[in-house]
Amino acid sequence: MQHTSLADARCPIARSIDVVGEWWTILILRDAFRGVRRFDDFQASLGIARNLLSRRLKRLVAAGILETQPYSTRPLRHDYRLTEKGRALHPVLMLLMAWGNRWAPHDDSTVALARDTLQPLDPLLVDRATGAPITPHSVVVRYADGPPNGGPAREGAPS
Amino acid sequence: MQHTSLADARCPIARSIDVVGEWWTILILRDAFRGVRRFDDFQASLGIARNLLSRRLKRLVAAGILETQPYSTRPLRHDYRLTEKGRALHPVLMLLMAWGNRWAPHDDSTVALARDTLQPLDPLLVDRATGAPITPHSVVVRYADGPPNGGPAREGAPS
Repeated sequence: MQHTSLADARCPIARSIDVVGEWWTILILRDAFRGVRRFDDFQASLGIARNLLSRRLKRLVAAGILETQPYSTRPLRHDYRLTEKGRALHPVLMLLMAWGNRWAPHDDSTVALARDTLQPLDPLLVDRATGAPITPHSVVVRYADGPPNGGPAREGAPS
Repeated sequence: MQHTSLADARCPIARSIDVVGEWWTILILRDAFRGVRRFDDFQASLGIARNLLSRRLKRLVAAGILETQPYSTRPLRHDYRLTEKGRALHPVLMLLMAWGNRWAPHDDSTVALARDTLQPLDPLLVDRATGAPITPHSVVVRYADGPPNGGPAREGAPS
């Protein structure tokens, strides 16, 4: 399914979803972050049909999330590397990992550890400038061109 | 499409995707976080067919991400509220919002602001215990039952 309307949505969540909101995409990114670069390695990891994988990779390249790079000239072969735009999705994967371990547990799961201490990581989202945790209650969502100080804006929180 | 294999994957990202990895799901959650509770309001916001919306909402209730609550007894009507499990996905939406505004910009977009200062939020993922930023290079991903100190583990980073 294509959902072209989302690409032009005023909501940035919708625009993100338009690019990455497809579960193969997330799993391809997961593999890319753990160092997978070659088509055959993605294929072995994901167990996905080659034509489907090929289409997904092409879509990620077209979206600027992966880029191809030649690793052999005869025959010409290329692999797939994360771009800056793709690497910027790393925190999303870390949160999905933590959420999955908390809310969809499995007694034989992977976990994320701090590389230097090997302690389990417990991700927390904060504001870069203030260090304050970002929670449903600390956020309001407004149109960028909306009234700066109130008005009938869309609220980000109260559930 | 159902992807039953993902529900039992050792990778928690895969298990999360199994639950929330469908773009309608994310947009329903977005609306729930901004206070939408009633079927008709979700429908008006999403412009989605009623039978499709009904199915998605049921799926989210079955997954324990939303719960129904009666708001009228004659006739009996219920609305949809986020559970703790659902609210735990808020940081994911905040990251998708920031990523969408950075990498899929739109000159008339919504933005997330700090509720108390109305300053734009710039989300950063840190470790709750140490406050250290979580980046591709600061993380290793291991099987929970894997060797505690090295071994042929899956790496979380080098791209």
